[in-house]
Amino acid sequence: MISRMDIEAASKRIGGYIRKTPVISLEPGSWGLPCRLTLKLELLQHSGSFKVRGAFNRLLSRQVPVAGVIAASGGNHGAAVAYAARQLGYYAEIFVPEVCPVVKVQRLRSYGAQVTQVGAFYAEAYAACERRATETGALMVHAYDQAEVLIGQGTLGREIDRQVPDVDSILVAVGGGGLIGGIASWFSQKARVIGVEPEQIPTLHAALAAGRPVDVTVGGIAADSLGARQVGQLAFEVARQAVNKVVLVEDEAIQEAQSRLWEALRIVAEPGGAAALAALISGRYKPASDEHVCVVVCGANVDLETFTRLPG
Amino acid sequence: MISRMDIEAASKRIGGYIRKTPVISLEPGSWGLPCRLTLKLELLQHSGSFKVRGAFNRLLSRQVPVAGVIAASGGNHGAAVAYAARQLGYYAEIFVPEVCPVVKVQRLRSYGAQVTQVGAFYAEAYAACERRATETGALMVHAYDQAEVLIGQGTLGREIDRQVPDVDSILVAVGGGGLIGGIASWFSQKARVIGVEPEQIPTLHAALAAGRPVDVTVGGIAADSLGARQVGQLAFEVARQAVNKVVLVEDEAIQEAQSRLWEALRIVAEPGGAAALAALISGRYKPASDEHVCVVVCGANVDLETFTRLPG
Repeated sequence: MISRMDIEAASKRIGGYIRKTPVISLEPGSWGLPCRLTLKLELLQHSGSFKVRGAFNRLLSRQVPVAGVIAASGGNHGAAVAYAARQLGYYAEIFVPEVCPVVKVQRLRSYGAQVTQVGAFYAEAYAACERRATETGALMVHAYDQAEVLIGQGTLGREIDRQVPDVDSILVAVGGGGLIGGIASWFSQKARVIGVEPEQIPTLHAALAAGRPVDVTVGGIAADSLGARQVGQLAFEVARQAVNKVVLVEDEAIQEAQSRLWEALRIVAEPGGAAALAALISGRYKPASDEHVCVVVCGANVDLETFTRLPG
Repeated sequence: MISRMDIEAASKRIGGYIRKTPVISLEPGSWGLPCRLTLKLELLQHSGSFKVRGAFNRLLSRQVPVAGVIAASGGNHGAAVAYAARQLGYYAEIFVPEVCPVVKVQRLRSYGAQVTQVGAFYAEAYAACERRATETGALMVHAYDQAEVLIGQGTLGREIDRQVPDVDSILVAVGGGGLIGGIASWFSQKARVIGVEPEQIPTLHAALAAGRPVDVTVGGIAADSLGARQVGQLAFEVARQAVNKVVLVEDEAIQEAQSRLWEALRIVAEPGGAAALAALISGRYKPASDEHVCVVVCGANVDLETFTRLPG
């Protein structure tokens, strides 16, 4: 398993490359919630999501071959790997599925990566990426199921711990599980870690029910960022021990959370980035009145045109 | 003049009603700048701008009559007064000019205020508001030229001082001058305070040149938030003593700053909110390489449709 020392070491390793993103505490009674609420604004991170933490940690922990680095991604992980590769001077090749929004493809290209769009969802893009990696010998950076990646995402847990020292629970969106695996490894029962998944992509929920990662169908508005077909094996092992609960949210609740963030804070979150908040707003997670909840707002890469058309 | 003690007292008075907004430090070399750069994300404030600080301070310092409160505004101040009035249980009547964007009118109405749209720019709306205030006896909350308002905005200076203790210079957008008057009153030469104005609305620049507030013509993309015809008398007095420099920026530079904030941080700033950054990006303000610059990003109330059409 991953230790706090691993995460401390990663924090030193990547510290010069990532942003320390701010938190903001909301006023009591916000959105009718009984609890104390702090948002971790990780969507202000380089490349628009937390994914650069894991990407930098992987690239800085390994020898990168001449063929450079390669990754498959719904979009955010690819953008993060492309950004990290550019900063470190490596060639990057990224595979994304058709569900990847235009804004993410543009972002990938703007970072100078070679982009191939293939397959409907992440799993198909991943298969193509694996084949290509075998051909070229490039270093694969997995979107969630590699120890260095989980450890890198764990630095976000460490940051929350320092910024919100009295936090009781952390709400985290789950796709492949890299983020929650890292955060839960850091807190390891020192605070409650709650996973939030779209009803249409219940990877961790299904894995915990089955006792092992199992395939789920993938769909809905957050499929580009949370659309793994299975939760990662590493994240699953961590989650069994250190995730307190997994709740499911409907797409409508995710859109509602996006709208609330915009109305109250002028924050533009992508669906996956707003999913954790959706658990609170929809009542799927019911905090106690004296509970201090930290919600990780983890991604911002939404097409503005799409965002403008949000209901409500 | 305004003292630090006034601002300390205001900070206690309004502390339960406003958000402590976060800062974020950018990485060295961001946007090709030689300096250290920290952004104060005041656009995450209630009502989408710093204006609630002054509004709450005024309302909490005075007896509010049965007729309630009244204000004229390009939009942000009105939204702030309407928000503060609703929180405190007062009736609010707000006058805005035609330049006020739809998003701000909607925001005003969503806070339950009675809204009258009149005149091309702020000065005309203000004249109508003054006449109405005489009729009703409502408490006028001036957008910038009242001591309580300046003192309230000064709490933003106090916050920056605590969050960025080694700050060398603070870049602040200027319209009527309430924000810079408050911030400069706090720092009072302890750090450099730099005013930034659109070329098309140089209220403070013109006043300093003339030795007194004088009329300027009002135009350009930031006219809804920075479109006062004159800088306020109070702000002018403060600025003569405690503002180090005023620089002017073109509308194109403001749009460029909006785009950079979006590209690098997924922050949606309105033109007036991005103006201070425009001074750095356009080179109108040239920091030293060891200078720690704090840029106040002070407003977020932009129509998303307009924002989506930004050039570049």
